Amino acid sequence: MMSLPIFCTVADLRTQVGDWRRQGLTVALVPTMGALHEGHLTLIRRGLALADKVVASVFVNPTQFGPNEDFAAYPRRVSEDAALLQGAGASGLFAPTVAEMYPDGFVTTITVAGLSEGLCGTFRPGHFDGVATVVAKLLLQVGPDVALFGEKDYQQLQVIKRLVRDLDIPVRIEGVPTVREADGLALSSRNAYLSAEERAIAPSIHRTLSAMAEALRAGADVASQEAWGKAQLLAAGFASVDYLEVRAADGLALLLTVDRSARILVAARLGKARLLDNIPV
Amino acid sequence: MMSLPIFCTVADLRTQVGDWRRQGLTVALVPTMGALHEGHLTLIRRGLALADKVVASVFVNPTQFGPNEDFAAYPRRVSEDAALLQGAGASGLFAPTVAEMYPDGFVTTITVAGLSEGLCGTFRPGHFDGVATVVAKLLLQVGPDVALFGEKDYQQLQVIKRLVRDLDIPVRIEGVPTVREADGLALSSRNAYLSAEERAIAPSIHRTLSAMAEALRAGADVASQEAWGKAQLLAAGFASVDYLEVRAADGLALLLTVDRSARILVAARLGKARLLDNIPV
Repeated sequence: MMSLPIFCTVADLRTQVGDWRRQGLTVALVPTMGALHEGHLTLIRRGLALADKVVASVFVNPTQFGPNEDFAAYPRRVSEDAALLQGAGASGLFAPTVAEMYPDGFVTTITVAGLSEGLCGTFRPGHFDGVATVVAKLLLQVGPDVALFGEKDYQQLQVIKRLVRDLDIPVRIEGVPTVREADGLALSSRNAYLSAEERAIAPSIHRTLSAMAEALRAGADVASQEAWGKAQLLAAGFASVDYLEVRAADGLALLLTVDRSARILVAARLGKARLLDNIPV
Repeated sequence: MMSLPIFCTVADLRTQVGDWRRQGLTVALVPTMGALHEGHLTLIRRGLALADKVVASVFVNPTQFGPNEDFAAYPRRVSEDAALLQGAGASGLFAPTVAEMYPDGFVTTITVAGLSEGLCGTFRPGHFDGVATVVAKLLLQVGPDVALFGEKDYQQLQVIKRLVRDLDIPVRIEGVPTVREADGLALSSRNAYLSAEERAIAPSIHRTLSAMAEALRAGADVASQEAWGKAQLLAAGFASVDYLEVRAADGLALLLTVDRSARILVAARLGKARLLDNIPV
């Protein structure tokens, strides 16, 4: 029996959140694009540790996809998502339509300069404007105390933290460590695009990043490690590597040497999938 | 004796607003750049009719001024402003520093496309990005039930209404009719830039707009009225007319004929001042 409340309009959602507020309850938000997996459910459970109620949103946001990207193909299975959310203890699902999010006459864009450039920003022009704008909207629609995002999309997490600080959105942003398969592959809705053969290749991402992190901690040179890592991935069978870079963990500045807390970030293409991952150094 | 509470940080301001909220009180915000006049005080009084508490902000926002504009010269007199606000019944003054509004690392910009183009947007590139960003911040810092803006800056009011709708900022935006001198000159902090001679010329703006509105209501042609109005202002002694246009009152679309609720908008230069005005048709 499904008892998870599903809200399709901002008005209905706000009525529910307003009721919780009047009861003195705190609220967490977990924004997602659906096709939920254990990584998302970990966010829900972490949300329940931080707030009384957890709302998940499921919205495949068209404005963060480029014209040649997988907006149409992106997996959509909202009833399975609802069942998973209920199982994880979520308090509600916000599933707006595109027309509810972007009504006639919508013209506003939020740009987080600097952090949105480089890495995925180079390969997905406009992507982070779409992310920043829709996340700001979700935060202002729900009005949560805390919102949770996976570290798997690390640049996105940095953009959102900056957005919230810069616009004074009254919410705390919580990053949650990436959940992985036993072989190290980061969970992602886009892993569904992989053939069996590609799935066997995919864990080389995490093996490569882990080896790089170890070498960097032992004092290896950043540029030669980046070159080594790219060669590893291509040798393993990846079609191409969009980027594999060592950056400052806070603010994503380019690093010539690991002189502060750092992060190794990668995007690489394998069959129809573009896989992201990152780990701390 | 001055008892108006003045808040210089977002944290102090939010503590006060939080106290009011816990008492069940509603809050209005009147964002200003200071150098207050009767137009601003009218906004305060209207705010007191709509909410229990009215906060005015005074912040001369650098990001909405172009490099050759009057940011440095813009009148600043915050202690006089505080006295006027107290006299009008305001409940608090928020007067942040530039560093409080734009701390180190600030990189976020909000753009409201379409409405920010044309009219003042043509002559002040980036101006409305600065306005949209700072107004979003003020709304999110204060969290008011209602925020009040003068119709004197009519394009700005349209941009802000759209911004709030598009980003789902939970606030009602209230436009308040322009307050005028006895001779029709719209009150503006920038009227202080006028010499006595220029001050005598300035009311020809309102006379010209009023004559145009009457002619348009009687069926006169839009393009010829615009041309007539510009010639009137130049003949009266204005140095130049940035624009004088008839636009749709809601959304500011260009109008060839007055087939819906319309607005005549003007910006014209006189000495060191660039004067704005607008009236409904």
